[in-house]
Amino acid sequence: MDESVLDDISHRRYNPLRDNWILVSPHRTKRPWLGQQETQGKNTLPDYDPECYLCPGNKRSGGAQNPDFKNTFVFVNDFSAVKEEQADYDPPQSDASFLVVLGLLQCQVAIEAGANAESYRRIDKTSLLLKAEGVKGKCYVVCFSPAHNKTLADMSIPEISTIVGTWQSLYRDVQSNTPFRSIQIFENKGAAMGCSNPHPHCQAWTTSHLPEEPAAELKNMMEYQQAHGSCMLCDYLAVELEKRERIVAENDAWVAVCPWWAFWPFETLVLSKRCIKTILELESDKDRELFADIISTIAIKYDNLFETQFPYSMGIHQAPLRGTDEEHAANHVHLHFLPPLLRSATVKKFQVGYELLAEPQRDITPEQAARRLQGLGAELYRKKLE
Amino acid sequence: MDESVLDDISHRRYNPLRDNWILVSPHRTKRPWLGQQETQGKNTLPDYDPECYLCPGNKRSGGAQNPDFKNTFVFVNDFSAVKEEQADYDPPQSDASFLVVLGLLQCQVAIEAGANAESYRRIDKTSLLLKAEGVKGKCYVVCFSPAHNKTLADMSIPEISTIVGTWQSLYRDVQSNTPFRSIQIFENKGAAMGCSNPHPHCQAWTTSHLPEEPAAELKNMMEYQQAHGSCMLCDYLAVELEKRERIVAENDAWVAVCPWWAFWPFETLVLSKRCIKTILELESDKDRELFADIISTIAIKYDNLFETQFPYSMGIHQAPLRGTDEEHAANHVHLHFLPPLLRSATVKKFQVGYELLAEPQRDITPEQAARRLQGLGAELYRKKLE
Ligand SMILES: O=P(O)(O)O[C@H]1O[C@H](CO)[C@@H](O)[C@H](O)[C@H]1O
Ligand SMILES: O=P(O)(O)O[C@H]1O[C@H](CO)[C@@H](O)[C@H](O)[C@H]1O
Repeated sequence: MDESVLDDISHRRYNPLRDNWILVSPHRTKRPWLGQQETQGKNTLPDYDPECYLCPGNKRSGGAQNPDFKNTFVFVNDFSAVKEEQADYDPPQSDASFLVVLGLLQCQVAIEAGANAESYRRIDKTSLLLKAEGVKGKCYVVCFSPAHNKTLADMSIPEISTIVGTWQSLYRDVQSNTPFRSIQIFENKGAAMGCSNPHPHCQAWTTSHLPEEPAAELKNMMEYQQAHGSCMLCDYLAVELEKRERIVAENDAWVAVCPWWAFWPFETLVLSKRCIKTILELESDKDRELFADIISTIAIKYDNLFETQFPYSMGIHQAPLRGTDEEHAANHVHLHFLPPLLRSATVKKFQVGYELLAEPQRDITPEQAARRLQGLGAELYRKKLE
Repeated sequence: MDESVLDDISHRRYNPLRDNWILVSPHRTKRPWLGQQETQGKNTLPDYDPECYLCPGNKRSGGAQNPDFKNTFVFVNDFSAVKEEQADYDPPQSDASFLVVLGLLQCQVAIEAGANAESYRRIDKTSLLLKAEGVKGKCYVVCFSPAHNKTLADMSIPEISTIVGTWQSLYRDVQSNTPFRSIQIFENKGAAMGCSNPHPHCQAWTTSHLPEEPAAELKNMMEYQQAHGSCMLCDYLAVELEKRERIVAENDAWVAVCPWWAFWPFETLVLSKRCIKTILELESDKDRELFADIISTIAIKYDNLFETQFPYSMGIHQAPLRGTDEEHAANHVHLHFLPPLLRSATVKKFQVGYELLAEPQRDITPEQAARRLQGLGAELYRKKLE
């Protein structure tokens, strides 16, 4: 298969994990940019900030005081998006076929009773079109370190391994002690990604339902498994390992690629080589170290790319809690890194009009992005500046 | 149906147009915000900017010179995302069932020929997992006015009617003179929405394929039509007109609502009362005026909300070009306004980690947003400041 023409022509690529398409316009990089100039980011934050609600010993907005933690620290978000306890919402039965039957019955009864059949029909449409369901859950904040001014790129492998261990404990705790169906671990890094506090931390939102993105991925992975008798991400990994064109980093247990279907300019997908289903399968210290190593490598490459504190959103996708055997079998642990920067520390890709209303669109190809990231060193640029 | 409990509890709402769910966390508005302070935007731009490549008479980056236009002005984007002429890409046949058959045949032939069957299997997986197709098209820029410093909110109804007429001519031209399947008219307004030039303009991208968003909406509208024998958006409009809870603006021909499933804080959906399929059905001057009127009303309300030049992306969805009868019948012209601001002129909603990796999430309910917009006057705040 010769794909070299795709370097020059507009085309769409298919994302089998999400079952959607992305428009790619490689020639558009030639467009002049009138935006701001690149600035070189040097970390000027203090090690401890008395105003930071995530630093050890400080007071949080909810009134609680942080302990004098030495490694990671987990607490329930003072302004959680979902709560464990709340009133129930009992939506009217909205199964379509049931409704048709019910509607007919009601109309029959209504007509017999002399009422207006039209108003019953309207009730059915309303419950079809105004559908909602209650959501319970719990939102956690996970501080990565007591140091206010460290990012994953600055941390050692043992420090990141400790974070991995904390994610595992949290997963295990939610699995054992709650009825919830999902735990989404994610990090928003940088002001450009809506993060208002630079103290290194991630979040974990657990919910009573399986959210849209992991649900869609799971559906597609299960269908692939059914149709082809193999794991979609194992197959995809094999293709990438053979081509070696989009691989950005690799160690004994993990591979990071700019996926064929990447939407964000320097998006990466981190895949485990073994087909593990949840992060609980990282059983040994060595397993956790290798996971920490690939995360560290990606974080350093990103910062080195534009010599800045590279903003991104990152998240772990894995088998849902309380899943069926089929759901478990079709899964494959992976991380998505979604960074907005396009050309420099200050010029990002905007996902706006066309992207929101018609189709995701990118300017450089994933292969071009991968080549840029491949060429970057493993030592953090800031270390040299210090 | 009593939905009042949804004002207080976390819940998900279903979007039947897009077939997806949105997480709503009403109580989260109580969260204190440490972001920037609100500023009051006064328009300080000149009427004509010699540096602007969209002002009449000026040179564009491609070298062409703009005419001395008096109303609207259309030209082909000098840095189009898609082009009319380019090399072809012939992807290998990737129909799954065909591939399985082909794969078996190939393997059979291969085995007989003594070759490695495994390598053939891999080729099949590759064409399944690295799918792409060429895209041709044309990208237009539509200047709304010669005045550099006007926005839709500043323009008169006759001025906006002229823009509507320009959109119609463009649609008609593309329909008659190109083989393309889609025309997406959209406006990115404000720096927050990736717009680098404040000169009032929109874009229209035409493509050889029907993009993701209109394709997904069309699929869902067609399925609804099949299942219920009526138009989804007509039914939805009837529900909203009866409830009158989420209606923000209305005239004889159009209704603007904060839809039940809104994702962006002050998102609105503008629906035609008559079930028209494309903007070509706005045949009389009166038709165009009423469309201009609802656009003007929304633009003014948005600017009045935080007394600022309100950023948004906006786009028109309508029946695709070269559609089948069923595609045409299931459609219903509508506009999406997608504005990012949440609390003030400077505090926007970030759609980041959880939203990208798990599920769209909003903090205020669409009903709360509608009440805010309902209460705003029809006169532009800036007029009073002048
Ligand atoms: O075409 P423009 O205005 O240069 O670019 C803007 O709108 C495009 C279409 O939504 C986006 O792809 C770009 O990211 C954005 O900056
Ligand atoms: O929870 P935070 O950090 O206050 O908020 C940030 O992340 C959330 C989860 O992605 C988003 O909903 C918010 O828009 C964003 O500002």
